[in-house]
Amino acid sequence: MGQYIAPLRDMQFVLHELLHAEDELKQMQKYVDIDADIINQVLEEGGKFTSEVLFPLNHSGDREGCTLDPVTHEVTPPAGFKAAYAQYVAAGWPSLSCDPEYGGQGLPMVLQNSFFEMLNSSNQAWTMYPGLSHGAYECLHEHGTAEQKALYLPKLVSGEWTGTMCLTEAHCGTDLGLLRSKAEPQADGSYKITGSKIFISAGEHDMVQNILHLVLARLPDAPQGTHGISLFIVPKFLPNADGTLGARNPIFCGALEEKMGIHGNATCQMNIDGATGWMIGQPNKGLNAMFVMMNAARLGVGMQSLGLTEVAYQNALLYAKDRLQMRSLTGVKAADKPADPIIVHPDVRRMLLTAKAYAEGGRAFSSYVALQIDRELNHPDEAVRKDAADEVALLTPIIKAFLTDNGWIATSEAMQVYGGHGYIAEWGMEQYVRDARINMIYEGTNTIQSLDLLGRKILLDNGAKLRKFGEKIRVFIEENGTDEAMSEFITPLADLAEKVTKLTMEIGMKAFQNPDEAGAAAVPYLRVAGHLVYAYFFAQMARLALAKQDGGDNFYKAKLATSRFYFARLLPETAMLIRQARSGSANLMALDAELF
Amino acid sequence: MGQYIAPLRDMQFVLHELLHAEDELKQMQKYVDIDADIINQVLEEGGKFTSEVLFPLNHSGDREGCTLDPVTHEVTPPAGFKAAYAQYVAAGWPSLSCDPEYGGQGLPMVLQNSFFEMLNSSNQAWTMYPGLSHGAYECLHEHGTAEQKALYLPKLVSGEWTGTMCLTEAHCGTDLGLLRSKAEPQADGSYKITGSKIFISAGEHDMVQNILHLVLARLPDAPQGTHGISLFIVPKFLPNADGTLGARNPIFCGALEEKMGIHGNATCQMNIDGATGWMIGQPNKGLNAMFVMMNAARLGVGMQSLGLTEVAYQNALLYAKDRLQMRSLTGVKAADKPADPIIVHPDVRRMLLTAKAYAEGGRAFSSYVALQIDRELNHPDEAVRKDAADEVALLTPIIKAFLTDNGWIATSEAMQVYGGHGYIAEWGMEQYVRDARINMIYEGTNTIQSLDLLGRKILLDNGAKLRKFGEKIRVFIEENGTDEAMSEFITPLADLAEKVTKLTMEIGMKAFQNPDEAGAAAVPYLRVAGHLVYAYFFAQMARLALAKQDGGDNFYKAKLATSRFYFARLLPETAMLIRQARSGSANLMALDAELF
Repeated sequence: MGQYIAPLRDMQFVLHELLHAEDELKQMQKYVDIDADIINQVLEEGGKFTSEVLFPLNHSGDREGCTLDPVTHEVTPPAGFKAAYAQYVAAGWPSLSCDPEYGGQGLPMVLQNSFFEMLNSSNQAWTMYPGLSHGAYECLHEHGTAEQKALYLPKLVSGEWTGTMCLTEAHCGTDLGLLRSKAEPQADGSYKITGSKIFISAGEHDMVQNILHLVLARLPDAPQGTHGISLFIVPKFLPNADGTLGARNPIFCGALEEKMGIHGNATCQMNIDGATGWMIGQPNKGLNAMFVMMNAARLGVGMQSLGLTEVAYQNALLYAKDRLQMRSLTGVKAADKPADPIIVHPDVRRMLLTAKAYAEGGRAFSSYVALQIDRELNHPDEAVRKDAADEVALLTPIIKAFLTDNGWIATSEAMQVYGGHGYIAEWGMEQYVRDARINMIYEGTNTIQSLDLLGRKILLDNGAKLRKFGEKIRVFIEENGTDEAMSEFITPLADLAEKVTKLTMEIGMKAFQNPDEAGAAAVPYLRVAGHLVYAYFFAQMARLALAKQDGGDNFYKAKLATSRFYFARLLPETAMLIRQARSGSANLMALDAELF
Repeated sequence: MGQYIAPLRDMQFVLHELLHAEDELKQMQKYVDIDADIINQVLEEGGKFTSEVLFPLNHSGDREGCTLDPVTHEVTPPAGFKAAYAQYVAAGWPSLSCDPEYGGQGLPMVLQNSFFEMLNSSNQAWTMYPGLSHGAYECLHEHGTAEQKALYLPKLVSGEWTGTMCLTEAHCGTDLGLLRSKAEPQADGSYKITGSKIFISAGEHDMVQNILHLVLARLPDAPQGTHGISLFIVPKFLPNADGTLGARNPIFCGALEEKMGIHGNATCQMNIDGATGWMIGQPNKGLNAMFVMMNAARLGVGMQSLGLTEVAYQNALLYAKDRLQMRSLTGVKAADKPADPIIVHPDVRRMLLTAKAYAEGGRAFSSYVALQIDRELNHPDEAVRKDAADEVALLTPIIKAFLTDNGWIATSEAMQVYGGHGYIAEWGMEQYVRDARINMIYEGTNTIQSLDLLGRKILLDNGAKLRKFGEKIRVFIEENGTDEAMSEFITPLADLAEKVTKLTMEIGMKAFQNPDEAGAAAVPYLRVAGHLVYAYFFAQMARLALAKQDGGDNFYKAKLATSRFYFARLLPETAMLIRQARSGSANLMALDAELF
């Protein structure tokens, strides 16, 4: 039902021509041996695996869903998921970007990121099983003891075991300070964990022998609120020191949630009934440790929506070329057919190009951030590492919220191209819309991302991180400001950059008087920031395309047209958003809650 | 599982205070006896019926769906649907606005419209069973022979039988000119109809004894395209002259579609295998006759999304007052609780107010249009009838597309208020989003509505209809232009009205050179027009609220706050839309189809 072909050409364009990933990576000792051939080979293999193995299970997985055995508490994912996971492990995909010390292949994040896009294009629900392992890996790698790392990391790296994040409880999601799960210290240094968690993605399944649950809970003497939360690793089966499996730990799936989408993934209510766990990191500092996992997850969620945007676009395009309906307003285009293919109609093209531009903009932006993560972690120059870390911190909430909002818009437009057929499950388009919807919610709602960006990442340091990133844009504008061919891109980019500066100062001053001003502006502000970033990347891509468009490679013609579409049709959203962000908090706060 | 309480106070405000429906209706002979008491009583009874009988079946209907017996081809809707329909018929609801000559109660459309909103708030999927009967009723009432009317109308009016619209075929939806179903004339004046139809809502079910299918098909000698389509009535059971049922007609449900939403409604593939039918209206003029039904249906689809917007808002509001999560940024608000209710947070209020404003704007606008239909059909003055008809023609595509786009936005925002719980079926919010999605597609996609508005309704008569409506806005602006308290509403309204005039002229001139310019501008243009209409109604409502806000009735305080929110937060979308509409067709058409 439909198709997915990994967009290798565009990925290569982004990595090699736009970001010069090979040159950048060669500055890092860890990656001196990475060249374009290796990158292209991994992309190609990844494209084959995702198209051939995972994509065919996407629609059937949605229709079938997961089943829970109420007696054994075991969960069975949709048919084919387990076998596909075995292939994934056999091919070594779980270890792609992991530390060679624990069996990883040590490839850069920027490459992992492209592969992760493919995984999500082909099957978001499936990808969430190994996807959460990666967060658990990073959390343990940074905060685990040497013993914990030795015991758990090789299993996560190989994919033999998977991981979960157990944060949410029925009464608290955003506000983790309210959580109630308890951890009682035991004489042997372990803890007995008791509590009830909800919304645990991939919380139980039969694809691996063991599942490592990372659980937030409170010590008996813990202070209230977020400063009294600790993090524990609670394996489904208690591992022996040699890695073999011991006793079943009492952490059970009590129920599966019925959801709008991602039906192929098991969203579990987990009952933890005196399960044995071990602390990760320091007492009461669990949220700090978990944030490593959450930051990785936030980037991952953005990539989920990028993947859906791409696959929805590909299929809508096929349909628009194939479906015959009405004649072009400018005259018959396919005289040999009873009607013209609907791609002749301007508004069908608007829908297609919206998805195409959000896919290409998101790909450029997220690949850039992934490369910055590589620099943050591996660059020899501490100042470069620091700058990269600042940028990643600034851009992570934008990746999460902007890409997922755009994914919602794009998948819905792609579905609309199909007319009534888009609403029918058989065609597969409505699944993309349903799957995309969760990405705006989990790992911190998009409102939370917006407050994080505006409050914590921008206002808290008086805009220092934003100015550093803005300086890059300013340099680009200056370098290209005299190129007449570039003025259609540079003029609006410069205009928006100036407006963002003013808007940030204005909101900052208002928020200083009244914190609700930040809350009232945050969501439109984040989208303005997202557009500034996309405008910057589309302008860079347009520059490359302008230089190469006459070379006979139509790729550059298309890239230029997509860039122009972005500036003409999507960037104007900022005219609305800036007005909304400036409109202040009174229009939201004036009405008493009882009068709503 | 949530709640629905009909918004009686706001409906009464719209009908009595904003539209003075009673005075307007008294100008029409048919409605001289309608007073406010009658209107209020019907609204109250309607509220009870929809809340108590239909709403409790909404979620269960979605989960259960419909089932087809592959042997008998009979369809069983979800549990409770049939019994609820029997109650609906017993209470006389089907006949509310129907012609007393055929057993109707002869109540005005403006009242029927409010009741229809309630029906859709409580259960869109259920409402589609009787909803399509109403279109069939109107079509037969206008185009049927005296004999056809006598035979069929009493059954549709009483609700004993229901109707369908059989237009779409697998290869044609928008482009009905391509349809292939055939009608062979018979010696007795009937026709043998053969063909295959898809997406037939309420095409088969057990809630009534007989179903009247209105089927588009071609006569043997029919010209190609839309001028060769005739309309036939094809009953499931052939009625005898006395209204009793004769033979089963070979028009069978071959399959039910699996859809994104409206699971409680049977979306049927209908196989018509030499079924007996009778022509409605003239040969080859079937589309004209069907358009009566389609115009009614288009208004109805707008009302479906208005209903969903209202019920999604009501439930999100309950949740926002109840759910405790984080403290207000301006300090603790509920010191006795572990956290503040989330309605203290500005962005939660933004989401709630978006749904609230779209519900209240849509209610005012659609009630106005319904009253215009009453005037079009019943006013003694021919000039008034003509003006009303022009306005209804102009505003129908805006009702359909603007209200359904807004319903998609509003239900999604209301769902987002719930965080992760919004994505879980149990809470009911994600159903509203899924149900709302079809409304942007069926009865003419929103692109088709936009082309109808800009091309047919505006450019084709050189803007005459638009100018007439604009004149009302101009008079309102003039009357209130010197009232300082109104300037916050009048200034942006006047500004937008002027921009719409300029935009229309600009697009008209460009489209004269190149028809694709109309296609490229139509969708953002329709939303600009929608906002102009909403701004006009919110300004009128704000004027009433300003005058009455000190009387101690908090309703007016809330209305004023909602109007201010609309102008501050939703109207600014026009800044984006106008840029998009003006950006022209080149950014859409430049790229060759092969280069996408």
